[in-house]
Amino acid sequence: MIIVMKNQATEKQIEDVIHWIESVGYKAHPSIGVERTIIGAVGDNRDKGILKYAESLPGVEKTMPILKPYKLASRESHEGNTVVSVGPIKIGGPEFVVIAGPCAIESEEQLLESAYVAIKGGAQILRGGAYKPRTSPYSFQGMEEEGLKVLNKVSVKTSLPTVTEVVNPADVDLVESYADMLQIGARNTQNFALLKEVGHSKKPVLLKRGMMTTIEELLMSAEYILSSGNPNVILCERGIRTFETATRNTLDLSAVPVLKGLTHLPVIVDPSHAAGHWQYVIPLSRAAAAVGADGLIVEVHPQPEKAVSDGMQSLKPEKFYQLMDELRAITTAMRH
Amino acid sequence: MIIVMKNQATEKQIEDVIHWIESVGYKAHPSIGVERTIIGAVGDNRDKGILKYAESLPGVEKTMPILKPYKLASRESHEGNTVVSVGPIKIGGPEFVVIAGPCAIESEEQLLESAYVAIKGGAQILRGGAYKPRTSPYSFQGMEEEGLKVLNKVSVKTSLPTVTEVVNPADVDLVESYADMLQIGARNTQNFALLKEVGHSKKPVLLKRGMMTTIEELLMSAEYILSSGNPNVILCERGIRTFETATRNTLDLSAVPVLKGLTHLPVIVDPSHAAGHWQYVIPLSRAAAAVGADGLIVEVHPQPEKAVSDGMQSLKPEKFYQLMDELRAITTAMRH
Amino acid sequence: MIIVMKNQATEKQIEDVIHWIESVGYKAHPSIGVERTIIGAVGDNRDKGILKYAESLPGVEKTMPILKPYKLASRESHEGNTVVSVGPIKIGGPEFVVIAGPCAIESEEQLLESAYVAIKGGAQILRGGAYKPRTSPYSFQGMEEEGLKVLNKVSVKTSLPTVTEVVNPADVDLVESYADMLQIGARNTQNFALLKEVGHSKKPVLLKRGMMTTIEELLMSAEYILSSGNPNVILCERGIRTFETATRNTLDLSAVPVLKGLTHLPVIVDPSHAAGHWQYVIPLSRAAAAVGADGLIVEVHPQPEKAVSDGMQSLKPEKFYQLMDELRAITTAMRH
Amino acid sequence: MIIVMKNQATEKQIEDVIHWIESVGYKAHPSIGVERTIIGAVGDNRDKGILKYAESLPGVEKTMPILKPYKLASRESHEGNTVVSVGPIKIGGPEFVVIAGPCAIESEEQLLESAYVAIKGGAQILRGGAYKPRTSPYSFQGMEEEGLKVLNKVSVKTSLPTVTEVVNPADVDLVESYADMLQIGARNTQNFALLKEVGHSKKPVLLKRGMMTTIEELLMSAEYILSSGNPNVILCERGIRTFETATRNTLDLSAVPVLKGLTHLPVIVDPSHAAGHWQYVIPLSRAAAAVGADGLIVEVHPQPEKAVSDGMQSLKPEKFYQLMDELRAITTAMRH
Repeated sequence: MIIVMKNQATEKQIEDVIHWIESVGYKAHPSIGVERTIIGAVGDNRDKGILKYAESLPGVEKTMPILKPYKLASRESHEGNTVVSVGPIKIGGPEFVVIAGPCAIESEEQLLESAYVAIKGGAQILRGGAYKPRTSPYSFQGMEEEGLKVLNKVSVKTSLPTVTEVVNPADVDLVESYADMLQIGARNTQNFALLKEVGHSKKPVLLKRGMMTTIEELLMSAEYILSSGNPNVILCERGIRTFETATRNTLDLSAVPVLKGLTHLPVIVDPSHAAGHWQYVIPLSRAAAAVGADGLIVEVHPQPEKAVSDGMQSLKPEKFYQLMDELRAITTAMRH
Repeated sequence: MIIVMKNQATEKQIEDVIHWIESVGYKAHPSIGVERTIIGAVGDNRDKGILKYAESLPGVEKTMPILKPYKLASRESHEGNTVVSVGPIKIGGPEFVVIAGPCAIESEEQLLESAYVAIKGGAQILRGGAYKPRTSPYSFQGMEEEGLKVLNKVSVKTSLPTVTEVVNPADVDLVESYADMLQIGARNTQNFALLKEVGHSKKPVLLKRGMMTTIEELLMSAEYILSSGNPNVILCERGIRTFETATRNTLDLSAVPVLKGLTHLPVIVDPSHAAGHWQYVIPLSRAAAAVGADGLIVEVHPQPEKAVSDGMQSLKPEKFYQLMDELRAITTAMRH
Repeated sequence: MIIVMKNQATEKQIEDVIHWIESVGYKAHPSIGVERTIIGAVGDNRDKGILKYAESLPGVEKTMPILKPYKLASRESHEGNTVVSVGPIKIGGPEFVVIAGPCAIESEEQLLESAYVAIKGGAQILRGGAYKPRTSPYSFQGMEEEGLKVLNKVSVKTSLPTVTEVVNPADVDLVESYADMLQIGARNTQNFALLKEVGHSKKPVLLKRGMMTTIEELLMSAEYILSSGNPNVILCERGIRTFETATRNTLDLSAVPVLKGLTHLPVIVDPSHAAGHWQYVIPLSRAAAAVGADGLIVEVHPQPEKAVSDGMQSLKPEKFYQLMDELRAITTAMRH
Repeated sequence: MIIVMKNQATEKQIEDVIHWIESVGYKAHPSIGVERTIIGAVGDNRDKGILKYAESLPGVEKTMPILKPYKLASRESHEGNTVVSVGPIKIGGPEFVVIAGPCAIESEEQLLESAYVAIKGGAQILRGGAYKPRTSPYSFQGMEEEGLKVLNKVSVKTSLPTVTEVVNPADVDLVESYADMLQIGARNTQNFALLKEVGHSKKPVLLKRGMMTTIEELLMSAEYILSSGNPNVILCERGIRTFETATRNTLDLSAVPVLKGLTHLPVIVDPSHAAGHWQYVIPLSRAAAAVGADGLIVEVHPQPEKAVSDGMQSLKPEKFYQLMDELRAITTAMRH
């Protein structure tokens, strides 16, 4: 961390800051510039919460962190890219992976039909929610354990590995007994109690970026899972909240190359929740493939007009097949 | 809900929309304008998720909700203002209530000293965190149950009622056995599993607005607690995330009069977390009183330079006394 | 416009609103629902400023506009897509058009070298700024008329048509005498005096979206130009300001399909200013092509390390050639 | 500026960065930490655009500016607070100054009546727009020079000094011949051509913060005016654009104490445009006084229901008198 002194800072104030830095266990490296003295605080602890307090000391203008706050998630800590296995499917390797399925599991028929659509289109993993975090307490909250059983049944029947959301730390054991990957939703990106719990799971975790989570905070949330012992984390960009209301959220596709530079973890994109409208899902999916994502998670529903949630953003089967054709063209073009 | 048709919509498309509205259980009221046909969908269900799907039907331009999605939290459902009792203290009545104390409970000495400062300044409720949601897994996570015991001990010694944060649904019973009010932090405003759990508690709930939560979503989160059976909810504005980085978050003081118009629940303000720096806490506290809030929750620490978390935004005792003097002047002026 | 009454609104209040609507020249269409009365205000004027006042009348809950505020820019007003000619180059037709060149014109040598790089890579139009809107008054403000002369000279030598920014209404005549297209920069998207002036120009206008401009406001700014008599407007997404600071701005690629649905005007993307760093320019350019943009405007500099402005986001020649190769692969794949 | 090297940076890369720093005219001060080498680039130029390029050099992780980019606007450059005179009225001194009047000048009668209301309530300066920047080209654009004449007439009749907006550099001479203060509106905060022009004016300038402008950028825009020779600049917070839509913009009252810490210039608040609804204007005005602003600019209209623009946010005379009474109570309380 660097501490920048005000240009009117007295020698006494500079000395006091140096003493204070040393009193909390760091080494002080002052450096006198033309207009300002700056003081480096050198040490090996990443929790610089205490040093941040320096901004309250007399004569201090501001503090600036030097080190990234995450360690295990950073490229520096891990050579090459992490490839995460979800059943037999590998995410983060050469193949572009598509996860498809309905927003909510509504019945065995609905999920099975969705799975057949997913397979026919060429998707490799099935999604479906049994626990649904809904803004309104009056909205459908999911089939819960019944839904998990349906998910497992359909997975066995179709041989598709599955991913489903978990929203309560108390449910992690139950959910991982039925599904191949645990999903942390956008409203739980900083639900640290839940992150620690999935950090103890043996199953891989799909960690969505919250709609107001910075890229650095997303990596810190991944760090919670990694430092709890679970190395299999997949990051997912799904749109951030901005002033623009023409789409439900603003899909931040720049986050993909930025994350690829900062971390070894795989990065996929969820265009359905970001856009909030099925018409934008196909172009945004093409863009996600072109920008360099490792895969996609997309909502498909055999009869969107009867979906209990998010029907508006779900693709009909024929649109999904069209999407998969267009994706194949782009990913093939990119390989050359 | 109102469905606006495109201006080139055909009669067939209009008829199809009308049939579809009726097929999902609503009454259709079409109305033909100069440039557009609009169709009202009338019914008594607040979960308009299905109707929202209408935007995917051919010829439809957009849909617009008419009803507010919250019911129990709305002014319409409840005459007068709700006054919430926290021990002997009443929030939402004529008195401006100040909740003060350290960010994290660090020891009995630290909390007891903080409580004496709170009392000397004139605060009515003691705050202190035993479970700390921290961005980094390497930061201090709180004293947990030990901290709760300290909180209770200090409360008994000083007769100050207390508020403390709960972060895991599994801890609600434990926390409410020690504290007088449960706090839901800004990262858990839409942690619906946790909201349902505190909705079953007998203790009042201090619900903070998330940094990414709209006013309407905050009221929906209150609705989760109210509809689970707990009528004692206090709302707290604590800053939203914007593009401005000069303060940690942007304190949205307009939210106070807006909330006062929409809901009967008390509204308080947390200037410490919004500002992120103690120098801005005093002017923002004055502004919170002037804008019409029912109270304040503010961080005070006997020795901020040694605080394990958020020292930078904690007031020293003498600054806290100054704040309380200034607040008294403003609240007195406003009563005349 | 629709006026939604509060559910406790009295009959008298409803009547008063109806009378008021008629007094300002609209027809009132009341409709009584289960919980609310809503009143349509029907008329043919798009300036609903006066009607908006209805929110201040007793008993009114809110107002909701039905019509889009733009007319000439909307798809409804114009069959098919507008194709804009910049010299011999057509934007908005089947070809994906690339505009390349340095941020600022620094000298004839620098611009000529940039133009040769642009041509070698396959770009069709040359960019270069003679008037630079800079955040700091102490930064290089551009070569002004000298720069325009250089631009024109290089254009004649290389046969590349050109685009350059205009920042002052008084300079429009001068700039259009030297360049083939006028650019309105992101800080001037709502500089209405300037928009009216370029609306009287014979040259096409490249209108950038401001970093805090909504899609609807961008279309309203286009409407200023169109309604002043200039039909040749190209829209450009260049990133919006959000809470994320990992990139300079957040490129809103969803805006491309949204705009394509709302307007007949061509839409291009500027990945350089959005990303703020050359490393992200190539993946974001691929994504812009994949999402369906009509073209790209990208910064290229023969020696970015010596650029007087924005060197960090400029591509070196070899990176630009790589970008163009990758773009060709994607646009070819999309045509099949 | 500080350049942070990657932790795997080679000695060669570090040397190359040092050479490059020196080649562009700065001195390099390397400092070797536990995990990173950092290199200070010391020099006396505030335009660090070139140094920023360092982020593109091999082995560099990031760059961090040390100096604030503004000079004349900073507290360091000017002892004490600047007090700006608008006719006989002083802003920035001990008195809280209220500027009141209609959004747009509509007629002599309307403005005169508004002026009498302003005087009766105790306001010291009259506002009224003759050039209106409107989102829609179909909205009323102002009375232009006719409006300026009306403004001047009413000023002479009532002895109230006046402020009015200027939107085109070409109009500055004309506007300053009629008004006592020039206003730069929120959409022109970064209209640098206009800033330079009012920088040459003899009249004081009321500079509004744009809805997309950071506090630092606002100070840079003030720097444009100051460095062009006009020392009389008043800053005005009027709400920033955020994700919240319950108010038109989010009034950032924290900006007042932040600006008071950074600059010697006076700071006032415009609650009318931020809130967008008259009901929130009174509480937000009280808060602006309590947070420490030097004054207020507020919209008052004798008959808001007939206003040609922004009627919804204008106070009726009796509400304005109530506001002024409440403000007096708060400012009196704050003086003790």
